[in-house]
Amino acid sequence: MKLIRSYCPGMNLDLLQKAANQARGLAMDAVHDCASGHLGLPLGCAEIGAVLFGDLLNICPSQPRWLNRDRFILSAGHGSMFLYGWLHLSGFNIGIEDIKNFRRKGSITPGHPEFRDTEGVECTTGPLGQGIANAVGFALSARRAAARFNRPGMDIFTQHVFCLTGDGCLQEGVARESLALAAVLKLDNLILIYDSNDITLDAPAERTQLTDPRAVYEALGWDVRQIDGHDIRAIESAVEAAKNAKNGKPQLIIAKTVIGKGIPGIEGTTKGHGEGGAKLQEEAHANWGIPAGERYYVSEDVRTAFANLKAQREKDFNAWNAMYEQWRRAYPELAEELDAGINACSCGVNPADSDKAIPPFPQDYGDATRSAGAVAINAIAKANPCFLTTSADLYSSNKNYLSGAGDFSAETPEGRNFWFGIREHAMAAICNGIAYDGLFRVSAATFCVFVDYMRASIRVAALSGLPVTYILTHDSVAVGEDGPTHQPVETISGLRVIPNLDVIRPADPEETAGAWMAAMQRADGPTALILTRQKVATLNGIPVETRREGVLKGAYIARKEQGALKAIILASGSELELALKAAEKTGEGIRVVSMPSFCRFDAQPAEYRESVLPSSCMRRVSVEAGVTDLWWKYLGCQGEAVGINRFGFSAPGTQVLEELGMNVDNVVAAVHKVLAK
Amino acid sequence: MKLIRSYCPGMNLDLLQKAANQARGLAMDAVHDCASGHLGLPLGCAEIGAVLFGDLLNICPSQPRWLNRDRFILSAGHGSMFLYGWLHLSGFNIGIEDIKNFRRKGSITPGHPEFRDTEGVECTTGPLGQGIANAVGFALSARRAAARFNRPGMDIFTQHVFCLTGDGCLQEGVARESLALAAVLKLDNLILIYDSNDITLDAPAERTQLTDPRAVYEALGWDVRQIDGHDIRAIESAVEAAKNAKNGKPQLIIAKTVIGKGIPGIEGTTKGHGEGGAKLQEEAHANWGIPAGERYYVSEDVRTAFANLKAQREKDFNAWNAMYEQWRRAYPELAEELDAGINACSCGVNPADSDKAIPPFPQDYGDATRSAGAVAINAIAKANPCFLTTSADLYSSNKNYLSGAGDFSAETPEGRNFWFGIREHAMAAICNGIAYDGLFRVSAATFCVFVDYMRASIRVAALSGLPVTYILTHDSVAVGEDGPTHQPVETISGLRVIPNLDVIRPADPEETAGAWMAAMQRADGPTALILTRQKVATLNGIPVETRREGVLKGAYIARKEQGALKAIILASGSELELALKAAEKTGEGIRVVSMPSFCRFDAQPAEYRESVLPSSCMRRVSVEAGVTDLWWKYLGCQGEAVGINRFGFSAPGTQVLEELGMNVDNVVAAVHKVLAK
Repeated sequence: MKLIRSYCPGMNLDLLQKAANQARGLAMDAVHDCASGHLGLPLGCAEIGAVLFGDLLNICPSQPRWLNRDRFILSAGHGSMFLYGWLHLSGFNIGIEDIKNFRRKGSITPGHPEFRDTEGVECTTGPLGQGIANAVGFALSARRAAARFNRPGMDIFTQHVFCLTGDGCLQEGVARESLALAAVLKLDNLILIYDSNDITLDAPAERTQLTDPRAVYEALGWDVRQIDGHDIRAIESAVEAAKNAKNGKPQLIIAKTVIGKGIPGIEGTTKGHGEGGAKLQEEAHANWGIPAGERYYVSEDVRTAFANLKAQREKDFNAWNAMYEQWRRAYPELAEELDAGINACSCGVNPADSDKAIPPFPQDYGDATRSAGAVAINAIAKANPCFLTTSADLYSSNKNYLSGAGDFSAETPEGRNFWFGIREHAMAAICNGIAYDGLFRVSAATFCVFVDYMRASIRVAALSGLPVTYILTHDSVAVGEDGPTHQPVETISGLRVIPNLDVIRPADPEETAGAWMAAMQRADGPTALILTRQKVATLNGIPVETRREGVLKGAYIARKEQGALKAIILASGSELELALKAAEKTGEGIRVVSMPSFCRFDAQPAEYRESVLPSSCMRRVSVEAGVTDLWWKYLGCQGEAVGINRFGFSAPGTQVLEELGMNVDNVVAAVHKVLAK
Repeated sequence: MKLIRSYCPGMNLDLLQKAANQARGLAMDAVHDCASGHLGLPLGCAEIGAVLFGDLLNICPSQPRWLNRDRFILSAGHGSMFLYGWLHLSGFNIGIEDIKNFRRKGSITPGHPEFRDTEGVECTTGPLGQGIANAVGFALSARRAAARFNRPGMDIFTQHVFCLTGDGCLQEGVARESLALAAVLKLDNLILIYDSNDITLDAPAERTQLTDPRAVYEALGWDVRQIDGHDIRAIESAVEAAKNAKNGKPQLIIAKTVIGKGIPGIEGTTKGHGEGGAKLQEEAHANWGIPAGERYYVSEDVRTAFANLKAQREKDFNAWNAMYEQWRRAYPELAEELDAGINACSCGVNPADSDKAIPPFPQDYGDATRSAGAVAINAIAKANPCFLTTSADLYSSNKNYLSGAGDFSAETPEGRNFWFGIREHAMAAICNGIAYDGLFRVSAATFCVFVDYMRASIRVAALSGLPVTYILTHDSVAVGEDGPTHQPVETISGLRVIPNLDVIRPADPEETAGAWMAAMQRADGPTALILTRQKVATLNGIPVETRREGVLKGAYIARKEQGALKAIILASGSELELALKAAEKTGEGIRVVSMPSFCRFDAQPAEYRESVLPSSCMRRVSVEAGVTDLWWKYLGCQGEAVGINRFGFSAPGTQVLEELGMNVDNVVAAVHKVLAK
């Protein structure tokens, strides 16, 4: 690897140090002016920023989504002014006015980095630890892309993934899970830079962690270097060595830094973390060689050197691009697959194709929706070579294994089944990383109740609009003997309140096919598929098309009333069968509405919603084996909710359901009750 | 330390091995008969069970809640038949009929160990990793109890905490956080036994973890021993050494075992994990020396030896108890404090006392509810010496620090402020451990939005009925500049659906005092207090008593309409002020209901609920800066919900609130809308 600065006019060690100090100044001035934000990292890591953005990152600011760019993830997202400052200096689409608008309404420089808001920001970070797992996802994506698409003499994917993190991220469990996994998967394309400043928000770090972490990371299987994080040459050497290591070990650079460096009396203390030091703006400026009275200062020589660097990077990009065009001509089918992968992530898959991909189930199928899900996911994977899946040690229970698609490992990096161990949180956050990278379409499976472990990452997926699919099986107390720790009752409702997360709980195999179609349609957010452990009836009384397309609309009439409409029973998932049976028993005027997805239904035009749930009929009963709170939105105050507003217990599933009132008689009684109102 | 078997008639190495094999038989027969459950651990760890329950555990089966018992936590809760088998053999209140009823409805031997269901079960386990964190909580509790209550020559607390875990638990992030913390806090009273069988549910463990973990644990600061987990003498030596180490390091025993040991063709494979091997019952029985055709077999000599052991343990207990009575007489004030601690955990604190403890706030207080919370928690801590608090590096933001109460550390184990680092999940699970132990009353704080990291542990607290209090500040988009990753919108609703979790979002300082009173009242479940970052009005128009006692009831009339009731505005937290202002603007017939806690309101008698929300008035408007879904329960279909059904954005908090429609005008418009219906 060569240093760009060795052939980039005006770029040299002194210039990089000057740029580092001016980046400090940008952070200081932005935080000062909005009176909030975090100075600790931008000041502590300025030399690291200089080496990466001023030299060693293989990026092209005019091509921010270049396929082969090095990815840079700021896991310590609160240090966002680090990122904005360096993106600005290196020529991304962030002007000095944007820096001045830091943390202001409508700016592209929000308090924490937000995916889609800002060119050069690879992902949304802020919730601690997530970025490290995201970086593992980017590294997996890079590894698989290289294996799948590179050809002799045409290495179109050679990128490295950089992640800058502090103690805050590294103490988090999701980070610990990810570090372990990165070593097992031998991700030597991953370079983690640890801003080790011995300070956390509240206290010196030694209060909550051991003082010498090096041995831990080495034992975990990482290649570790420790350096002075303010020594530009040392940083360069360490990054070069890490890039060149290729020894099957993920790379860790422990950079000893001074938090808030340059603010007199505050650097190196807990006060250096936040915005407190901004009041010492002038004194700090002087320490950094910024002329007195200047604000948002960048010297001419720094501007010029970074402009030269940007031009040089464009040349590097063009050289790659020529090779890439050649590759596209030489391997048109691979190019098509790559395009499809990128499009599948950004635009979704044509639902008609998914429909064709998943043939109708036999009328006597009679298996659990998790089993129907296995059929659907395998059909989708066959039709979409970019489709991947992952498991937290539950392939055998969740049934999301892609037959014949191979297992991902260091030795078999083309595999499409990822084994993540018993690490649900890392799984979800790594899937976010894969989805941010946007080359592959990814799904993740675990027991429904354990989605709680992943919730923080699911929230980020919803916020970032990532089309990840969660496969959550064993969806009610019907789980049975494993007892209340394994029986969701509130879990599905807990997911339904997350904005931009589609939650779908299909009733039978055809609805399951429809649910997968719905998930694959989405380009702008995640979908949670809620599937049964137990066998369910195949509802042949409803046409296949009605069931599949009904799911896409969130709710549909599963049984039309005969004669005048007297009451409506609403149900989701395995309880739709109860609703249908209860309707049979209660007479002619009873409509049954299958409601697999609240949010998809809410997004339908008012006329459709009115056609399914006419406001003239407020005699309504809901049936779902879980807490009832959210159903009231559709029931109104005259309605009745049949559900389970308590935790379950250990016994065979049918007994638990019966004991907790999930039976036809109770639904019938509820219908009679609303009819009598 | 002495081996009990050296002076317990009939108990010897051969007998222990025999007992181990018969414990295997119990597990096999129970799993066989209910056709579900997990054989892997009960068979793989039988010799470990024999050493602990048949000798080295300092327990007294006839005194299952003995204060000074060694605690045993089965983190790998799916291996529940290990626990039931050994509790039965060692003489706890579990008969052979209970073993036969394994996983059956109403049994005391549910699929996973459940706290309160079974004597000798210290905590509910099953969600992986939680038990390890719980054990850290028990160890902290033990450490603080010893420091606080032991006196020269009267060590009433000397217990060790044992935890048995497999790879499933150890791979989890919550376990990793806890392991790190245990070393920092120098918990050498914690002994973790690692059932290392190289197999996970789905695959050989080497697929997802490094094969030699020893160096990792040593680097983390643990004292590590590795043994053959089927060698009774080796287990004994390791446990003795761990108990005697007292070297400031938590103790790890890596026991290499064979999963499902004794089932021909299945032991040592992934098939050994679950119930699959139960079909080879007879062959396995033969391997274990169980007479052909016998079921649930325990030989006479084993019965006799364990009966002798139980008697011996009673003698040991009696010796301790004599010392304990002497201690109570010598230190009556300490005894009172200990009793109060135990009672505060099991029965709650008299709310009248809390009320007295927290004096009324000044009328011009005008600060955030998190600041009012700081006043309340310090008052409570002053009145309750058993009250502890914990933080995941946010004392300075959450403001739950107990002034003058000291910081817990190895050197200052009487401290009542616990510093857990940036480890929210471990914090919550460790608090569960402290609450299970029941000597202290504990609380935990973080930013509201990051409660997602803790959700799996909060669920277990709710399920187990643990009176933990969560202090969740920065409760809406009013957080402002930090942006959507830090702004809860769905978070509070996500908590409200968890059964047996009280969620309280107070509106002002007096409601905050009431919320703390409500939390302290609870003996049978956790409470989440939702507090603002921003300053809120002190609502002096409502009497102090009304505000405080109103919170206890979940909802109350904050502003009574004048004349005929025309419409009701419901609000929680900081939005109550908006509701009151909107009512002023909309005329005489408008009632305002403050609704800090849905679940507490739902638990009130029907008459009270009707008096607050008369069913005759369905013109209702809700106001809350968050998703609106749950409010429909109280609004009915004619109502209007003013809320935020999307993620927020980065800008000053007041601007975000305004942009997202959280203002008086919008509430007024909504009232006019319902009035026009």
